[in-house]
Amino acid sequence: MDESTLLAHIADRSRGLAGGAGWSVPVGPGDDCAVVHSAGGQTLLLTVDQLVAGRHFEPGTDTDLIARKAVARSVSDIAAMGGTPAWGLATGLLPPGYPHADTLFDAMARWARRWSCPLVGGDVAFHGSPDHPLTLAVTVGGVMPDGVAPVLRSGAKPGDGVFVTGDIGGSFETGHHLRFEPALEAGTHAAAHGAHAMIDLSDGLGRDAGRVAAASGVVIELDAGAIPLRVAARPWRDAIADGEDYGLLIVGPDACAPAGATRIGSARGVSPGERPGAWAIDGDRRVDVTGLGWDHR
Amino acid sequence: MDESTLLAHIADRSRGLAGGAGWSVPVGPGDDCAVVHSAGGQTLLLTVDQLVAGRHFEPGTDTDLIARKAVARSVSDIAAMGGTPAWGLATGLLPPGYPHADTLFDAMARWARRWSCPLVGGDVAFHGSPDHPLTLAVTVGGVMPDGVAPVLRSGAKPGDGVFVTGDIGGSFETGHHLRFEPALEAGTHAAAHGAHAMIDLSDGLGRDAGRVAAASGVVIELDAGAIPLRVAARPWRDAIADGEDYGLLIVGPDACAPAGATRIGSARGVSPGERPGAWAIDGDRRVDVTGLGWDHR
Repeated sequence: MDESTLLAHIADRSRGLAGGAGWSVPVGPGDDCAVVHSAGGQTLLLTVDQLVAGRHFEPGTDTDLIARKAVARSVSDIAAMGGTPAWGLATGLLPPGYPHADTLFDAMARWARRWSCPLVGGDVAFHGSPDHPLTLAVTVGGVMPDGVAPVLRSGAKPGDGVFVTGDIGGSFETGHHLRFEPALEAGTHAAAHGAHAMIDLSDGLGRDAGRVAAASGVVIELDAGAIPLRVAARPWRDAIADGEDYGLLIVGPDACAPAGATRIGSARGVSPGERPGAWAIDGDRRVDVTGLGWDHR
Repeated sequence: MDESTLLAHIADRSRGLAGGAGWSVPVGPGDDCAVVHSAGGQTLLLTVDQLVAGRHFEPGTDTDLIARKAVARSVSDIAAMGGTPAWGLATGLLPPGYPHADTLFDAMARWARRWSCPLVGGDVAFHGSPDHPLTLAVTVGGVMPDGVAPVLRSGAKPGDGVFVTGDIGGSFETGHHLRFEPALEAGTHAAAHGAHAMIDLSDGLGRDAGRVAAASGVVIELDAGAIPLRVAARPWRDAIADGEDYGLLIVGPDACAPAGATRIGSARGVSPGERPGAWAIDGDRRVDVTGLGWDHR
């Protein structure tokens, strides 16, 4: 069972969740964050991401950058709902005798404070073998501004513009995946200005645009020539499959586009016999990009 | 750096935390749960625990029991504050080709619903090698009943009684560590009836009593003969070091003791020249049990 199938299975099993102690669960698994409402009317955004040595960073990566990425990935999920981080929890599973434990946790704490989700708790354990990979998991809770609803993947409408913040592709070769700044300001701007759908670009623009299209029941058409490339020499087809861009894909009226965002396409309704999906238009070619991206994190 | 030293380091670095978006952090790292207050006045309990194959369960353990323990450990932390679970998040890092992924996540979801913390989100990733251990981490958020404050480790007072729920020792050999029921009812009873201090017994009665003593600045004296043993033939000195009992150690007036709890001792002030700690009285022997327990999870 691959990750996509498993996640779909989990989301399917999670329909109709009700939390304990009077909490409700308007949005369960399947979006960038879960959305829960307390009995007292408070809305919380909740997300957790793992970072695994050898999968999400190369052995030998600077400890500070490992810590940064572990926190930033979860903060980026909060940004993708239009929210603001409030607190964090971190777990670390470390090789036995790992010499940088204090440096690593200090750095995670520092990055978490920078993005306003101080680490209020966590858990540390040690592997049985030095061959087992350093693994971090960071949970972040966040909130929405008063009167602003979380922006889901499922709200894109025919006629909407499609925008991205930041550049696309080449994240690993340039080191961007270790140094990106979660798009918190862009996300809160978009949410406050009527964005219909949003996702953070973690698994490749093609795949992530396809997810918004599928969740919203629309077709997303991208102008291949408009995609802002991080590495100019990299073909757009490769760039949109690279993943780990961590900008936001924002779908909605022009007014929701944050400063510096690039318009790269539009959404339209599904024609008879057609399925929701994401396409790139490159001159007279029309390429199905729905599946272009990662499925192994 | 061992786990205790590292956790102390993290707690030390976390003093004076303020959350984002107007949240405050009355209790940061170092208790069973963190306690955070929202700008709107909501109190949340937050905890996360990891479960690692080969450390917290033997290879070959039934998938349902692995799932159960992963959720139960975090729920037990909520119980130890006197709270009620409200929602959960789970991560899984699985060996490549792991055949029970859907069963495992279904079971985690089922146990989480049973303890009223439905899994509203999570993250799944796969290891690069089949030799790397299955690792789960479960975050649980909980709430306190109206008007009841979370019970910390630091509130024990001279003259208090010391109580435990459940039995002590032999948890691994009997399989109790896979099948325990988190002491939610006992915890809410104790909190509502004036308990001064509470901790869940994960690392051994000796060590955990020592933690309460140190946090509270008292001496805890246990009556060795009163300790309820799970395995009658096991000497009390071994039993209190075994760990993974997952009952509650409750310190406070008699009224706070839940039904079925056992009184095993009392707290007193620290004499001049003495340090806070936990002792067991066995006839005319007086044994320092502060350090008896695990330090490797």
